[in-house]
Amino acid sequence: MMRLSTPGFSRFIQAEQFNVTYGGGEANVALSLAQLGIPAEHVTRFPDNDLGHAATSYFRKYGLQTEHIVYGGDRLGVYFLEFGAISRPSKIVYDRADSAFAQIQPGMIDWEKAFENAGWFHWTGITPAISDGAAQTLLEGIQLANRMGITVTSDTNYRKNLWQYGKSVRDVMPELVAGCDLIVCGKHDARDIFGLEVPKGEENTWVATCRRIMQEFPRVKRIVNTKRESMSASHNTLSGMLWNGKNYLTTPVHQIVPIVDRIGGGDAFMAGLIYGLQQYQDDQKALNFAVAASVLKHSIEGDANLATVAEIETVMSGDTSGKLSR
Amino acid sequence: MMRLSTPGFSRFIQAEQFNVTYGGGEANVALSLAQLGIPAEHVTRFPDNDLGHAATSYFRKYGLQTEHIVYGGDRLGVYFLEFGAISRPSKIVYDRADSAFAQIQPGMIDWEKAFENAGWFHWTGITPAISDGAAQTLLEGIQLANRMGITVTSDTNYRKNLWQYGKSVRDVMPELVAGCDLIVCGKHDARDIFGLEVPKGEENTWVATCRRIMQEFPRVKRIVNTKRESMSASHNTLSGMLWNGKNYLTTPVHQIVPIVDRIGGGDAFMAGLIYGLQQYQDDQKALNFAVAASVLKHSIEGDANLATVAEIETVMSGDTSGKLSR
Amino acid sequence: MMRLSTPGFSRFIQAEQFNVTYGGGEANVALSLAQLGIPAEHVTRFPDNDLGHAATSYFRKYGLQTEHIVYGGDRLGVYFLEFGAISRPSKIVYDRADSAFAQIQPGMIDWEKAFENAGWFHWTGITPAISDGAAQTLLEGIQLANRMGITVTSDTNYRKNLWQYGKSVRDVMPELVAGCDLIVCGKHDARDIFGLEVPKGEENTWVATCRRIMQEFPRVKRIVNTKRESMSASHNTLSGMLWNGKNYLTTPVHQIVPIVDRIGGGDAFMAGLIYGLQQYQDDQKALNFAVAASVLKHSIEGDANLATVAEIETVMSGDTSGKLSR
Amino acid sequence: MMRLSTPGFSRFIQAEQFNVTYGGGEANVALSLAQLGIPAEHVTRFPDNDLGHAATSYFRKYGLQTEHIVYGGDRLGVYFLEFGAISRPSKIVYDRADSAFAQIQPGMIDWEKAFENAGWFHWTGITPAISDGAAQTLLEGIQLANRMGITVTSDTNYRKNLWQYGKSVRDVMPELVAGCDLIVCGKHDARDIFGLEVPKGEENTWVATCRRIMQEFPRVKRIVNTKRESMSASHNTLSGMLWNGKNYLTTPVHQIVPIVDRIGGGDAFMAGLIYGLQQYQDDQKALNFAVAASVLKHSIEGDANLATVAEIETVMSGDTSGKLSR
Amino acid sequence: MMRLSTPGFSRFIQAEQFNVTYGGGEANVALSLAQLGIPAEHVTRFPDNDLGHAATSYFRKYGLQTEHIVYGGDRLGVYFLEFGAISRPSKIVYDRADSAFAQIQPGMIDWEKAFENAGWFHWTGITPAISDGAAQTLLEGIQLANRMGITVTSDTNYRKNLWQYGKSVRDVMPELVAGCDLIVCGKHDARDIFGLEVPKGEENTWVATCRRIMQEFPRVKRIVNTKRESMSASHNTLSGMLWNGKNYLTTPVHQIVPIVDRIGGGDAFMAGLIYGLQQYQDDQKALNFAVAASVLKHSIEGDANLATVAEIETVMSGDTSGKLSR
Amino acid sequence: MMRLSTPGFSRFIQAEQFNVTYGGGEANVALSLAQLGIPAEHVTRFPDNDLGHAATSYFRKYGLQTEHIVYGGDRLGVYFLEFGAISRPSKIVYDRADSAFAQIQPGMIDWEKAFENAGWFHWTGITPAISDGAAQTLLEGIQLANRMGITVTSDTNYRKNLWQYGKSVRDVMPELVAGCDLIVCGKHDARDIFGLEVPKGEENTWVATCRRIMQEFPRVKRIVNTKRESMSASHNTLSGMLWNGKNYLTTPVHQIVPIVDRIGGGDAFMAGLIYGLQQYQDDQKALNFAVAASVLKHSIEGDANLATVAEIETVMSGDTSGKLSR
Repeated sequence: MMRLSTPGFSRFIQAEQFNVTYGGGEANVALSLAQLGIPAEHVTRFPDNDLGHAATSYFRKYGLQTEHIVYGGDRLGVYFLEFGAISRPSKIVYDRADSAFAQIQPGMIDWEKAFENAGWFHWTGITPAISDGAAQTLLEGIQLANRMGITVTSDTNYRKNLWQYGKSVRDVMPELVAGCDLIVCGKHDARDIFGLEVPKGEENTWVATCRRIMQEFPRVKRIVNTKRESMSASHNTLSGMLWNGKNYLTTPVHQIVPIVDRIGGGDAFMAGLIYGLQQYQDDQKALNFAVAASVLKHSIEGDANLATVAEIETVMSGDTSGKLSR
Repeated sequence: MMRLSTPGFSRFIQAEQFNVTYGGGEANVALSLAQLGIPAEHVTRFPDNDLGHAATSYFRKYGLQTEHIVYGGDRLGVYFLEFGAISRPSKIVYDRADSAFAQIQPGMIDWEKAFENAGWFHWTGITPAISDGAAQTLLEGIQLANRMGITVTSDTNYRKNLWQYGKSVRDVMPELVAGCDLIVCGKHDARDIFGLEVPKGEENTWVATCRRIMQEFPRVKRIVNTKRESMSASHNTLSGMLWNGKNYLTTPVHQIVPIVDRIGGGDAFMAGLIYGLQQYQDDQKALNFAVAASVLKHSIEGDANLATVAEIETVMSGDTSGKLSR
Repeated sequence: MMRLSTPGFSRFIQAEQFNVTYGGGEANVALSLAQLGIPAEHVTRFPDNDLGHAATSYFRKYGLQTEHIVYGGDRLGVYFLEFGAISRPSKIVYDRADSAFAQIQPGMIDWEKAFENAGWFHWTGITPAISDGAAQTLLEGIQLANRMGITVTSDTNYRKNLWQYGKSVRDVMPELVAGCDLIVCGKHDARDIFGLEVPKGEENTWVATCRRIMQEFPRVKRIVNTKRESMSASHNTLSGMLWNGKNYLTTPVHQIVPIVDRIGGGDAFMAGLIYGLQQYQDDQKALNFAVAASVLKHSIEGDANLATVAEIETVMSGDTSGKLSR
Repeated sequence: MMRLSTPGFSRFIQAEQFNVTYGGGEANVALSLAQLGIPAEHVTRFPDNDLGHAATSYFRKYGLQTEHIVYGGDRLGVYFLEFGAISRPSKIVYDRADSAFAQIQPGMIDWEKAFENAGWFHWTGITPAISDGAAQTLLEGIQLANRMGITVTSDTNYRKNLWQYGKSVRDVMPELVAGCDLIVCGKHDARDIFGLEVPKGEENTWVATCRRIMQEFPRVKRIVNTKRESMSASHNTLSGMLWNGKNYLTTPVHQIVPIVDRIGGGDAFMAGLIYGLQQYQDDQKALNFAVAASVLKHSIEGDANLATVAEIETVMSGDTSGKLSR
Repeated sequence: MMRLSTPGFSRFIQAEQFNVTYGGGEANVALSLAQLGIPAEHVTRFPDNDLGHAATSYFRKYGLQTEHIVYGGDRLGVYFLEFGAISRPSKIVYDRADSAFAQIQPGMIDWEKAFENAGWFHWTGITPAISDGAAQTLLEGIQLANRMGITVTSDTNYRKNLWQYGKSVRDVMPELVAGCDLIVCGKHDARDIFGLEVPKGEENTWVATCRRIMQEFPRVKRIVNTKRESMSASHNTLSGMLWNGKNYLTTPVHQIVPIVDRIGGGDAFMAGLIYGLQQYQDDQKALNFAVAASVLKHSIEGDANLATVAEIETVMSGDTSGKLSR
Repeated sequence: MMRLSTPGFSRFIQAEQFNVTYGGGEANVALSLAQLGIPAEHVTRFPDNDLGHAATSYFRKYGLQTEHIVYGGDRLGVYFLEFGAISRPSKIVYDRADSAFAQIQPGMIDWEKAFENAGWFHWTGITPAISDGAAQTLLEGIQLANRMGITVTSDTNYRKNLWQYGKSVRDVMPELVAGCDLIVCGKHDARDIFGLEVPKGEENTWVATCRRIMQEFPRVKRIVNTKRESMSASHNTLSGMLWNGKNYLTTPVHQIVPIVDRIGGGDAFMAGLIYGLQQYQDDQKALNFAVAASVLKHSIEGDANLATVAEIETVMSGDTSGKLSR
């Protein structure tokens, strides 16, 4: 999607200019991985016009491979963003109906080629919420990935304003999640997506929820989540949690103030987690890296995290001083 | 529509910012009239979101009355613009499918109220090209205007990339033009819209074409047109012509260099013509004013003409020196 | 007035550009009311040049009615602003001597017409401080409003650097305040404007001061004030208080950090109060709304509050989390 | 004066930002001389506030000596500028009534000190047009300069919108011009300032006018002028002429297109002339240099010429190709 | 190299901001080819810091392959640019001593890998002028290309301010040119580089020069050149010529006005020529395409041409009208 | 040096523009003193090109005397800066090898003339770290200053990434420090520069270190230091300490949040200290002023402090409220 954001803290009515970047859940994760040095490819569909190709160029700049983007359809999805401050929230106006991506149909992506040399396939819950074609195209990909032994991960990310094409989240998501090795899923997601509500008991409710999910989706070996508290539009805190079937891991709570750009915090977490799992082979370290990555994302303009491995590891080590080194 | 233009001469692929203005054929004419001191109202449909209301605010700033804009529908139409120079043309990417305006239906506009105190109703050939609903809503307006004795004018403005909703321009336009007192129409428009092609003869071919149009549409008392020659993206010439059933009036040829912003040149001409016909009661003066207004528009950033009556009358008088007065 | 502010945190000596907006006490209150959906008109005098008309256009954009602005006089008042941070205060250089508004004379405003359909008339203590003509013109308005039964409110707002035209605040203000139904007035204002200093006693000193003001000005039925504490140029707290002759109402203390633009905080409070009194018919709710509005103003660039009713009611309800909703 | 210009070609009503520079007739001449390597000092009066000191800093940046600027008075003069193009003229709104400089009084400038080491004193006809105090202060300076043997030059520059303090140009200017060694004066200036109108005769009318001026003001040994023709706001031509009592010298006609910033063209000419007379000791060369300097000024943003000696000499030599040298 | 250019027409002394792009002779040619759809790779050396990687990202954005860029050395070469207008030339300050590229040594580039799948190798005369290491590294490449049958082309581009490392252009260039199939070379280049000066005779002097070059360097089968005339910094004309051993081909003379950005005009020509030779297999068409490409480059901001094949073919066909198509 | 900083919080890879200012340790101290009203001169060497002269102009703007800057050498040193936020540090890329200043040699500066009327000579530990020529040129200056009775101060400021010209800090610094009356020196500096490490004992370790330094360098009468703690890139605290051989003076700890621009905080401290020592003749007051100055620097964009004496004294008095005064 094209992101058009008002400069500084100006409201839509005031804006005489928009800053232009490009992003989207999966793209943000992939772009961040590319910046961390992990080869990453974005698979999507853009219109075959100057804007679609500008989006591709943007991703290519940041090191994403873009060979399997397909071109066609009517328009590029757009979202408009104004930044909040103090107790005024940021505001988003989506304009992505009938985007080239929403019009995607099974068969358009050559998943065989796209998955050559691939080891990991990540998707978010936005994709199947957009259109039936997107959901089915995704399913193609997941099924092939499973057959090829590629790790599949998902940020389930339920948004109730989507899912307007006639099918419900509960109809569509279970089959997709069934092909996943790891998912991001909080208690509310579990309720909304799977209809799962675990009563408060002795065990941590989220862990209990995770157990239930894993029973239902035996391929899922890890479930992760972040906890964000919002003091104000300018000040949040963040921590992470991971259940791997045995251990309930958590991280320290990070202060995030003043927030520069909050969009894509979850995608930065996910990219950090994928990086961490691949590099550290240690769930706790991976989780710490993921949260540190997400914290740093809030200091970066645009949807995607541009923090470096060194910067993330510094924060992960507990040094959040932001000290200038010359 | 929202207009998003790249800064300076940068191409879409280079743009990190877009300048935001709002415009559209009828809106540009009305806005220009408001700047010339003629009370003018814009009747349209915008989405009921921050962008729709920002568009209204923009028009209101420049003195347009906006009380009869209706709100609803899915999205605001957008067009993306990059400016050409030398022999590189400016480039437009339209993104207006399914705009709130395209989704308009007869009955949504309260034409009775909108026409209270109105003396003139202007429309362009873009409107009926957008959707069947837009064409029918327009027809409602024209028919009521005719019943109320309101002057009706049209810039017929055929664009072949539009007209994709199933009806053809030749099906739709005649009934609309039949309600007009004055139209902008060139030889190509006459061929494309009415299927009229007058063979070269003794008389000026355009005049001959006008005679034929007036035979077919007896309400039409005046037909006007502009002649633009393009030396380069930065240098055009412009002149005007008017046939009022008796006289073939023309204007001097104006040099336009260097072009600052070419968009809306035709709308500035039309606004100038309406102003001129109302103020001067003299076809030649009105035509001269219209062309001078259009020339000055090319020095103005944005879709709509912000030149003043005094500035236009100076150019109309033959003084194109652009001399600074302190 | 035209406001020229340096970009970011740059000082006047550094500025190569100024951002241009337009504002002023009464204008800010009216503009904010218009944004809240309350029809509002600004009555003032601007020079009859491009800058005066640009100011009108600016106000019109944000929905203010501007039909009764009169044009004439020498110049538009200007103020220059640089933004402070940390412990460096913001700085203002006023340049409004001999503005068109300062040159106003009784009779220039057609108050009868301006008050058609009006239910509320608000003024600030800046106006009578500018010039004798402004004070007398205001008096005309207040007296007519009183005769017509229009509610009159004032932010008494004493600034000692004004009041340089030969009359003192104590000469002029009592007659004006006598026509008010509600005023903003703190202890220092009471001392400076009315010479009222209530010794510390059992009762809250401000309330005691309010009692004394109400004795002297029996039309005044409510007195309000805000309490701002300044931790730094970037961090303030704010709360409100209201005395209605019976009850001493207060609000929670709000944290305001980081401040985006502190100018017009008092005007946002006043607009919120007028909105609240009209909509809720409840002093406590009105006061809460007013303070919440003022808090949100600090996140808005420019003099006037552009927060929406929904945003203000969220903060007023105690939710200051600034959480993004998609 | 502070100059506030709209960006690009935007009109005042469109401007959300102003570009800030500082200038004024005498300041522009002095600044340009400083850039050409001639020590130059600007003597004026600014308000003792952040804006007055910002103006001083601006001049100091470009090498002007500012030690004898005096501080006091109410405000800094301002002018607002929008740039024209094609046949739309640039537009200026002056706001300099009651500026610190207009409020100057004899005795405020310590001319003795200011003239230490000075060899040349230049003034323009704007100064005595501003206020009686400015005219008298200037007269002080001219008289002292005459006593000290300092060359005195003037750009007589009559502007009818000035001269509003009760004295007329014909009352004031003759005494001032009487102290000059060289003046810029065209036929219209001669008529407006001295009431001199020479009928068309055998001799070039301007030369005949010069003869008459020199008879009346025997100290004046050279009179110069420029001839500007305006094809459009974007395209002018320029040439120069000089009468030294014996010879009528002229220059080639230069094409100036596209104009970047036309303000200060006359001041650049004057600075070029002073430089040329000092360096070349040759009237023709000095005149050629002056015109070339003025031509190049039109390519420079801001009031004052920043062209280098080398650039000017290239143009003066007939090479107007603007060829990039690496 | 990083290019830092002042905004608009401001001079270095005025600039508070620089626009940042990246370019260089060979990079510009390759980038332009990538935009024309020809796979192209840039082989160079950048410092291993954020700036070196930003340069790579910039090239990658525009579709260049960057896999064989090597990282190391001290710094990124920089050049500073201000744009001229009218008769004021653009100005460049180079700062590329000791750049990572100047410090390159034979062996650093793995030419074998870089040339895998390559069919064409282009270099410019800037490279051997920078340092001995650069010249020798280039020689490695040329020699391998010759062995592999890859077409080698060169823009010989003599700049006298370079060549400061101890060897002269005449020492170094012949061996390099000997490996070329096509070179850009004008009469002045032939004199400066090869010491070749052909006296005026019956035949066109440039053609006679070409014959002599081809005698000396039998591998060279085509020599091309452009002829630029400079009316002003804002208006140039351009045409091209090609000698292929049999025919002397020329193109129409194109008007280029107003120039947006003149840098890289020669590189755009070269990219156009390579494209044309590959696509058309026709020297005349290739030359026409090359000149049209170069003309369009002058409308593009930045060093490299972003014109499309369609745009270039329109100009090449003689349509230089720059007409907007909707 | 030229400082090129990315706008807002953008990273180098994102930057399409750089903001340009000029600075450097000694320049920042001198510029800040000039802004505080203390005549100050900057002595350095710049290249004799447009960039070198732009640097001089920049300093001149802010009131620095620049008469003894010498011109020559190859290039202007540059540093690139991106601003951090939250826990992401700011980042600097230096590019100052072979700068005109690094190429300075003894004899180039006419210290006799530069020291005419001088009472104070300040240098930083960066200078001798740059090159042998710089170290020797500095030594010339210190020795002459000592002979002339000019107070000499130094911010010893050890940076391990410098010192690459063959001599070590311990070889060079002692002789330079021996000529100083006051130095800034922390415990780490003492260890790195002088090899001094005082074991923890009864006395404050820094004071003990100071005693040892003073024994070794008897001319040094005062040693000062600041203590900065970094909560995040956006929030620091700062306090100061001074040992004058008798008393150990400290200041309150100041909160600095949100940081606008942290660069030059130490130079602002030093300028404040020099101002304070000269004006107050009281070590404690001078130290308080110095820390308050440094705190305020963090609110100023650019390397050098532009806070006024009044602003600093307000903070120094304990009022850190940043309250706007109208």
